Amino acid sequence: MISDVAYRPIGVFDSGVGGLTVCRKIAETLPAESIVYLGDTARVPYGSKSAATVIRYAGACAELLSARNIKLLVVACNTASAFALDTLRAQLSIPVVGVVMPGARAACKRSVSGRIGVIGTRGVISSGVYDATIRQIRPEARVVSAACPLFVPFAEEGWTEGDVITSVARTYLSGLLEKDIDTLVLGCTHYPMLRNVIAGVAGAAVHLVDSAEETACAVVNILEERGLLLTDAVRGTHTFLVSDSPDSFSATGAQFFGHALNQVEWLDVCVG
Amino acid sequence: MISDVAYRPIGVFDSGVGGLTVCRKIAETLPAESIVYLGDTARVPYGSKSAATVIRYAGACAELLSARNIKLLVVACNTASAFALDTLRAQLSIPVVGVVMPGARAACKRSVSGRIGVIGTRGVISSGVYDATIRQIRPEARVVSAACPLFVPFAEEGWTEGDVITSVARTYLSGLLEKDIDTLVLGCTHYPMLRNVIAGVAGAAVHLVDSAEETACAVVNILEERGLLLTDAVRGTHTFLVSDSPDSFSATGAQFFGHALNQVEWLDVCVG
Repeated sequence: MISDVAYRPIGVFDSGVGGLTVCRKIAETLPAESIVYLGDTARVPYGSKSAATVIRYAGACAELLSARNIKLLVVACNTASAFALDTLRAQLSIPVVGVVMPGARAACKRSVSGRIGVIGTRGVISSGVYDATIRQIRPEARVVSAACPLFVPFAEEGWTEGDVITSVARTYLSGLLEKDIDTLVLGCTHYPMLRNVIAGVAGAAVHLVDSAEETACAVVNILEERGLLLTDAVRGTHTFLVSDSPDSFSATGAQFFGHALNQVEWLDVCVG
Repeated sequence: MISDVAYRPIGVFDSGVGGLTVCRKIAETLPAESIVYLGDTARVPYGSKSAATVIRYAGACAELLSARNIKLLVVACNTASAFALDTLRAQLSIPVVGVVMPGARAACKRSVSGRIGVIGTRGVISSGVYDATIRQIRPEARVVSAACPLFVPFAEEGWTEGDVITSVARTYLSGLLEKDIDTLVLGCTHYPMLRNVIAGVAGAAVHLVDSAEETACAVVNILEERGLLLTDAVRGTHTFLVSDSPDSFSATGAQFFGHALNQVEWLDVCVG
């Protein structure tokens, strides 16, 4: 028998639209589940901000989603996963899933040579979280990483093809490609929007790992293990909350989520 | 006789480092004045956020600077000047100077043909504030404008020369240049960092207006008229406050301010 808790929604948050790439995979994988997504658009981006500030913002987002009675929290932001996961797990009594471990695990499984590249925000790369997580799973792996701070604004602007973004990608990736990587982790939930450009520059020999899919798998496994997985034929509802104006989020968000966002509501995140 | 009020500092705020280009001009023009600068780096950028959110953040910044007993407030951010100037003037009993009016006035004075271009953040351009202000001063002027949302991240990253930023500038400016403008307002306090690239693309026939210098003039005029101008031989002090980590601000800030920032302190801006 399915418990009442199973009928509670899954909570997902990110600094902005990026986490919608993760939300999309969860929605596709688990159509019966209801999802409440929070984009902290009044304080976006997180990737250039300090650990202390990101921990504080992530805590506020988690608190607001908890108030919506969620059964599981997905931290759909690599920067928040890097800095705040332990704090959030200590703060909440529900399971908390980050995007770093699923991405790292997929990269370790996929790489043949063990030479793995990681790209992400300045915060994620300087934290060394991917390096540590990958070596934990596969100690002989050689991890090379690069911060790509302009990828987020390019993705948010929808400037996802052409010579300019290709030149930017070439500048950021050249150091990694010289190291003969066979796998590249897209360590930021915005980067799947730039997948074609990144794949073009990286070449066919480099496999791209998008943590969205892997994170959706982790959610399935955890919910199933706890007896909280919904497999009803009835489709779940999707609610989107933002801390800045819903208008601009709806337009850009639809690109990231893959279809129109029905319900976008403003939520006050400034709780201290 | 100079009143006690004259010895209070000038307050200056911006979403981040951009306003330091204005702060620098004020410091150069008025070496005797003390300045307290607040960069709201925990919530940067403002330019992509909604009017309601920017008004709220600007109000919090103004309140925190007022608590430092300032004699005049400079809103060294075009987005905050566009959305929040009236609210701040109603909120405070001291003079409040924005960057839009000084820039618009300089452009009107400088332009021969009356064809004036304006570039800025999405917020500033969609507000139409420059268009309205310029036509108020010079009703026959023809104003053409363009949002350049990627200029701020490029300036913050220090990626201020080379082919990539030149291509970005060419893409943004081509529509304006087709309209035969003779004057271009840099309607964002970050843009002076990209001055060489913008000037190169715009060509020698286009005069660039940087509102920093004009804003410093406005500060001099207002302080003088109120009998609050300090002309002592003793140099004023410069204090820098930030809402995120002081570390990264100090490094980037020095580029924008023109020399090292001595005193950078963290300040909690999340007041509601």
